[in-house]
Amino acid sequence: MIRISTCCLAVSAALLGLSTMVAAAQGRGREQGENANVSPVYGVKLPKGYRDWKLISVAHEAGKNNDIRAILGNDIAVKAYREGKRPFPDGAVIVRLAWQYESSPRNDAVFPAPQSFVAGAPTNVQVSVKDSRLYAASGGWGYGQFDSGKANPSEALTRSCFACHAKLDAGSDQVFTAYSH
Amino acid sequence: MIRISTCCLAVSAALLGLSTMVAAAQGRGREQGENANVSPVYGVKLPKGYRDWKLISVAHEAGKNNDIRAILGNDIAVKAYREGKRPFPDGAVIVRLAWQYESSPRNDAVFPAPQSFVAGAPTNVQVSVKDSRLYAASGGWGYGQFDSGKANPSEALTRSCFACHAKLDAGSDQVFTAYSH
Repeated sequence: MIRISTCCLAVSAALLGLSTMVAAAQGRGREQGENANVSPVYGVKLPKGYRDWKLISVAHEAGKNNDIRAILGNDIAVKAYREGKRPFPDGAVIVRLAWQYESSPRNDAVFPAPQSFVAGAPTNVQVSVKDSRLYAASGGWGYGQFDSGKANPSEALTRSCFACHAKLDAGSDQVFTAYSH
Repeated sequence: MIRISTCCLAVSAALLGLSTMVAAAQGRGREQGENANVSPVYGVKLPKGYRDWKLISVAHEAGKNNDIRAILGNDIAVKAYREGKRPFPDGAVIVRLAWQYESSPRNDAVFPAPQSFVAGAPTNVQVSVKDSRLYAASGGWGYGQFDSGKANPSEALTRSCFACHAKLDAGSDQVFTAYSH
């Protein structure tokens, strides 16, 4: 009986801890406003100085997005990438910047043939924050999208991040981008 | 007579100075070898730590190159970009990294439709160094291409950099890439 109670208490405590953490994250997410520019669900902020971060890689998404993008990381994320460390350690932050995908008549006029596609106006910035305890329910990652610097308030959109990332192979720690040397 | 002599001396001195600078650059360019990994013509080095530099923008070159690229800059270059300063000040260095342009079956399996193109194996790295005196004969820019970290020894290839950049509008200071905010 004592053993069972201890076990139950431990499980209860763990569940309480988890629910407290999730509530904390959701609470942060709910504080939408001038002074709390954070994503719904996860309470993720647009990190200060992210535009100065190191490059992880680049990509082009055709179709509906039709963007060209750069993926930057903070020092914790870039170090983990360079060392091949998975899962990423807590504190790793990955930022995906994207711009409209545009052909460049200016470049094409100079090159021997039309071939050049460049970054146009910015579309949005997406942020992934690793916190294995706070975001345990979503693989250890919290997500946010920022449009012109403001957190997109859509819960549905924000939840769709995890829905997609969760489909990736386990070995990737649910991260799309590989590091480009 | 005295005035004319002074003028002639000044012109001679200027010409001597210019030819000395060009010779110095060409000399640096000729020092191809283990200890002088520099481009021909310009003597441009692959800058230390360039992979950690800040992002200027991204692009895709279709056609023969078929690459996806990131353009990074040292602090002098990025500051000038952000302040809209042209011509770039001496000491500005712009580095263009490129990778094979590849579709990503891994990403496409997760996304609603095939759409994802990513960076594959690296192709080469091109470097532009601003030194308005040393590289006066090429618009103030010295160029170099590095394949797997080694300076490409082709003079013809290296000279083709300026041939193409020189066709750009004067207001751009012969630089292709615009800064992406």
